[in-house]
Amino acid sequence: MQTDSLNSFDLDAYLSEQSTVIDHALETCLEHYPSDSTTIFRALRYGVFPGGKRIRPILALAAGELFGAAPVRILPFACALEMIHAYSLIHDDLPALDDDDLRRNAPTAHKVFGEGMALLAGDGLLTEAFHILSNPELTRCVPAATVLRVIHELTRAVGVLGLVGGQAMDLEAENQAVDLATVEFIHVRKTGALLLASLRIGAQIAGASAEELVRISRYGEYLGLAFQIADDILDFQGEDAAGASSESGHNEKRKATYPSIVGIVQARERLTELLQLCLQELAPFGARAAPLQAIARHVVTRAIRSNSEKSPKESNAQ
Amino acid sequence: MQTDSLNSFDLDAYLSEQSTVIDHALETCLEHYPSDSTTIFRALRYGVFPGGKRIRPILALAAGELFGAAPVRILPFACALEMIHAYSLIHDDLPALDDDDLRRNAPTAHKVFGEGMALLAGDGLLTEAFHILSNPELTRCVPAATVLRVIHELTRAVGVLGLVGGQAMDLEAENQAVDLATVEFIHVRKTGALLLASLRIGAQIAGASAEELVRISRYGEYLGLAFQIADDILDFQGEDAAGASSESGHNEKRKATYPSIVGIVQARERLTELLQLCLQELAPFGARAAPLQAIARHVVTRAIRSNSEKSPKESNAQ
Repeated sequence: MQTDSLNSFDLDAYLSEQSTVIDHALETCLEHYPSDSTTIFRALRYGVFPGGKRIRPILALAAGELFGAAPVRILPFACALEMIHAYSLIHDDLPALDDDDLRRNAPTAHKVFGEGMALLAGDGLLTEAFHILSNPELTRCVPAATVLRVIHELTRAVGVLGLVGGQAMDLEAENQAVDLATVEFIHVRKTGALLLASLRIGAQIAGASAEELVRISRYGEYLGLAFQIADDILDFQGEDAAGASSESGHNEKRKATYPSIVGIVQARERLTELLQLCLQELAPFGARAAPLQAIARHVVTRAIRSNSEKSPKESNAQ
Repeated sequence: MQTDSLNSFDLDAYLSEQSTVIDHALETCLEHYPSDSTTIFRALRYGVFPGGKRIRPILALAAGELFGAAPVRILPFACALEMIHAYSLIHDDLPALDDDDLRRNAPTAHKVFGEGMALLAGDGLLTEAFHILSNPELTRCVPAATVLRVIHELTRAVGVLGLVGGQAMDLEAENQAVDLATVEFIHVRKTGALLLASLRIGAQIAGASAEELVRISRYGEYLGLAFQIADDILDFQGEDAAGASSESGHNEKRKATYPSIVGIVQARERLTELLQLCLQELAPFGARAAPLQAIARHVVTRAIRSNSEKSPKESNAQ
């Protein structure tokens, strides 16, 4: 593995700094709503704060930075990405889908506010994300045509050909025997599409060339798949792929996962391979790509290192 | 009432023609999705077809026409408005909110596809609406900055300060004693905001002047309130304000309505007053405004004429 240039990069400090910047920007985006006056505003904020690792907005900022964009240009887009992620989690946790009681060690939104209010909070977050993207005061540094292109790409990533489609297929695959191709298909849409869009949006706002965009897109595709495979592996021990413990409460429904089909050993081999592919795409950018290199390495190595002494549970999960 | 100039306008023929145009445009918008291959695409289409009176896209076309825009410029926006309306109905019908089994004499989406798939179909419709609005091929006749302004206005109308906020307040007001101001507050957000946005979007794409936009906005505010009051009145007999029977299945939850607070007689007086205000705003546009005049008259007179022999039921509904 290409470890040399990366050992000097302090990923924990980077993630912590970027999270602080993003949290502050999210506060600014949401501050014109009267947070304490009505339940819907409290439910909306509950979905966004304290939040998880903020990996999607961090990827957007990192891709923007790689191609020379100041964070201030990327931040409104980064906030919208996080709000869309938050909406997808609230809806995914609802009894009609995953029926999870806990998320990030706290009760899920519908446990706190009721199902109806949680449903509406998710709807509100999705809608407000596009309200932010179309706010001329927030995105004035970016040409209107570029903003529209970003919205078009983002809506494809999270629509019926992306995240929503992946969730629908995931729902239909529950308790069914599915093959590896179907699991990858679900992963690519449900998780990969928004991660990929986050990177591409950062890169496009920064004015990346067509060739650079192809590279960052391939990196994003490999990372997205690695992210979900790692998540599946870490699910055995209640950790998520970005390193937060108990990102999702464990639901009772039987879902097809990568390791349940190919086994833990082969899943880890696939992860190692995906990391190499990620690093290969970033190689031409040299040290400037250190954050994106470190993120890929972090996602993958946690799942490879962790739990390596435990016996594989894939036979139980089959 | 100013009836003279309106008797010559054939509203039924107009609504029927416009509906056909809109249905065709919706088909075109949705045709790139493989309709029969997966459940989510079928659920999405189920929310859109056969549809109701298409009142929101018709208002957008009529406002555009009033200020000289060819329908082809307005249609992508009209389709997005209808898809957002369809999403709001699917989610509103879910057990977590109104828990309705029937809509337009057919089983609601969750009765056909299950709650999870209906939830996702609503999410998909909302997302695809913005995908259409940001499609450069569909909206190439309109400057990018104008499209962004439309998206910003639309997301305000259907976000937490609009439709979603109105639904949330409606949910909280269930089985509670609420005053007239609260009922109007809910109506303005839950129903009025999207009707108003439909008109304003049509007018803005057509290049209406600031003064014209103010007039059409006031018309929209009066119409939106009239629409909901008429709907409340017609709810006694299973008809909706646009004239379709059984637009919504009757839910069992007790909701505050305009006639339940002020009584049927006073609600009808308020409707008559709102019609006068609508016509007053349209007066300067003369015969060109015939469709919008006829729509306001249609919404109001149905509720005033209908059921006039029946004894008021407001004491039961209190």
